[in-house]
Parts: sequence; structure tokens; C-alpha cells
Amino acid sequence: MRLLSMPSSGNSYKVRLLLALLKRPCEIVDVEYKTEALEGARSAGRLPFGKAPVLELDDGRLLPESNAILCWLGEGTAFVPADPVLRAEMLGWMFWEQNQHEGTVAVRGALMFYPSRRVLATPERMAELLERGHAHLQIIEDRLAGGRDWLVGDAPSLADICLYGYTHTAGSRGGFDMARFPAIGRWLDRITALPGYKGLDA
Amino acid sequence: MRLLSMPSSGNSYKVRLLLALLKRPCEIVDVEYKTEALEGARSAGRLPFGKAPVLELDDGRLLPESNAILCWLGEGTAFVPADPVLRAEMLGWMFWEQNQHEGTVAVRGALMFYPSRRVLATPERMAELLERGHAHLQIIEDRLAGGRDWLVGDAPSLADICLYGYTHTAGSRGGFDMARFPAIGRWLDRITALPGYKGLDA
Ligand SMILES: N[C@@H](CCC(=O)N[C@@H](CS)C(=O)NCC(=O)O)C(=O)O
Ligand SMILES: N[C@@H](CCC(=O)N[C@@H](CS)C(=O)NCC(=O)O)C(=O)O
Repeated sequence: MRLLSMPSSGNSYKVRLLLALLKRPCEIVDVEYKTEALEGARSAGRLPFGKAPVLELDDGRLLPESNAILCWLGEGTAFVPADPVLRAEMLGWMFWEQNQHEGTVAVRGALMFYPSRRVLATPERMAELLERGHAHLQIIEDRLAGGRDWLVGDAPSLADICLYGYTHTAGSRGGFDMARFPAIGRWLDRITALPGYKGLDA
Repeated sequence: MRLLSMPSSGNSYKVRLLLALLKRPCEIVDVEYKTEALEGARSAGRLPFGKAPVLELDDGRLLPESNAILCWLGEGTAFVPADPVLRAEMLGWMFWEQNQHEGTVAVRGALMFYPSRRVLATPERMAELLERGHAHLQIIEDRLAGGRDWLVGDAPSLADICLYGYTHTAGSRGGFDMARFPAIGRWLDRITALPGYKGLDA
């Protein structure tokens, strides 16, 4: 098993984090943004949708999409609830992350973080992403406020790992005002405290 | 079981289509875009992420996100492959749909279809969506070309139903040049021929 992983990217980091929490060994192949390693993997047909991460199974099959890889690795572990309604709720958060949250929280972070993207960071776009991203973060805050420790059920699940990916750098990379979201702050700390936790740069 | 469903929307239609194929009865509550029905559902807290569709279970629990609802309804049926790798591939297509395909194919269609959106359809934006949407459709075409009947494995799965949602109106609503994608055309026909099939307006 081998992970084609972009070191700087939240989508790739989610998978690295789950591997660490599960203590599952996996060869990591770095394919950084705008590098020959990424272009090489793409032109060799190892990125089915043209993006990282991709998990390469031992029989050569290629699994793209960070959240699908989380599901594949998480199946049968404590990070996937047994109750079918909780599983559906978990997937709901994960589809929402890809459809809504990533398009503001991750995109604004990328526009500030990657030098090659900065030309696209017009003031209008950045202001709009800030406003919509704060609304997305508020949805997570509302869910966690009032004593809920985890997004789904009463244990950490793939939904938490998935949303942690870009939420934990929303302030530092994306310039979001995280002081507005105290319940998110406590939830981020709970994830950092999980046994086996590994940071984005670790 | 009750579906809060937007009649004109591909995300809601996916769920209605799966219900029809599974012959599962379900109360449908219409919440059309820009109507009081939608606003009422939103302010009553029945749309956890503020969007339709939402499946309301008999015990009152609310499941948002079209693709999570497909997974919930599809579990244990022929539309979810038993093989874990095929399941992961299926989820990969579904996350890609929400993260990439919907953002071009569905968005361009919506900008042309909903009168209230037309002001946002600047020539630059429409040209960019056309180009990126064609690239997304090409990924589906490449997958299906060469004799593959379905996106995953050798039977229709949730991945096909999910991608059908917006792909089948990509030409009529979104102005995409579907003549470039003959394998997609044959795949759309195969879905229409499934027993129980129901159209978007049916
Ligand atoms: N939906 C995909 C998104 C993956 C994605 O956008 N990857 C980016 C990095 S975060 C990438 O590979 N970008 C390289 C490129 O487009 O050249 C997932 O969750 O895995
Ligand atoms: N990721 C969601 C997207 C749902 C969505 O965007 N719904 C739109 C219609 S296609 C909606 O409810 N729009 C109403 C609004 O935003 O006011 C899903 O797949 O269910």
C-alpha cells in the first residue's frame, strides 16, 4: 500500500492523520504542488482524477479522493460508527466538506499559502470567501456547541478527521477569525490529543 | 420517511431516482428554489446544512446531503457493490462529483436555468465553466469508453445514479457539447432503460 500524498495539502493530510491514528504502516510518496513528482504521477496515469491524494493498493488498483480513502481505511475500525444512521450522518459531513467547506475554508487558505495562487486572490474574492467560510465554520460551531465532543455520535469518526484537515489551518492559512468559534477550538484540541496524532508537517 | 426535495434540482432528483429504482415508497415534500416552502423548512431547522435534499426519518432524525442519502437508501441493495475496493471506487466517484463535477456541470446549468441566477452568468465565467466542465465530462467519457457499461464494476451502482443527476441535463441546461461524448450518451441511455426509471420532471 502506497499513498501518493501532497505534503502541504489538507486533503492528503487527512489520510496521513488517519494512518497515524490507526498505526497503519504505509509508504508515502510525496507529490508536492507544482513539482515534477506530481506531473510525473499525473502523466503516468497514477492520478485517476488528476489530483492527490491517491492510494495505490498492493495489486496496483488506484483509489482517488481523500474521503473515499478514509472510508476504505476506516472500515471496520472505531472511526466508523456501527449504527447505520450515524454512518449516514458521518458521510453527510464528509460530502458537505467536499461540496461546501473545502470551497471556502481550503480555497482561501490556498490562495494565501501558495505563491503561484496569489495572483488570483482579488480583494472581492477574498472578502466573499471570508464571509462564506465564516458561515461554514459557524455550522461546525453550532454542531459542537452545547457539550457535543464529536461531530457524529459520541466518539471521534472519519467526519472529525475529514473536517479537521482544513479547519485546523483556517486561522493560520486562511485568515479566518477563529476567536468566534470557541467550541471548534476545543474540538481541535481533542483531536490533537488523540493517541497517535500527527501534525500536518510531521 | 419523508424527502424534502427540490423539484428542479439534480441533487434532489438523484434521490428520487434511486427511490424509484428501488420501488421504495417515500413521501415527497417539494421545497422549490426561492420559495416559501424552502425558507420555511430552513427556518424550522429541517435543513441541517441549509440545503435540499434532506431525508427525514420516521423518528425525526434528519439526513442531509444527496450522496449520503443515496448511501443510506442503497445499503444492502444491488446498487452498492459487496467488494470493498469497488465500494471505495464508488465513493470516490461520488466525492469527485461533489468536489469537481457539480462545481462546473451543475453550476453552469443553474446559471442558465434559474432566472434569478442569470445576472451572475458573465461571459468570462460561462466560458471558464464550459472549458472545465468539458474536462470533467471527458473524465467520465474516458472511463466509459472501451466497452465499460457502468462507472464501477459491471453493474449499475450509486456512482452511476449520482453522476446521472447533473450529467443528463449537461447539454440541455448547461450548454455542454455532448456530441463529443458518445460513450456518455450510451451510458445515459442504459440508465434510462433501468426498470423503474423515472425522469427529472416525472
Ligand atoms: N476531492 C479531492 C481533491 C483533491 C485535490 O484538490 N488535490 C489538490 C491538492 S489539495 C491537487 O492535487 N492539486 C494539484 C493540481 O490540481 O495540480 C480529494 O479530496 O482528494
Ligand atoms: N451537497 C449538497 C448540495 C445541495 C444543494 O446545493 N442544494 C441546493 C439545490 S441544488 C439548494 O438547496 N439550494 C437552495 C439554497 O441554497 O437556497 C447535496 O448534494 O445535497
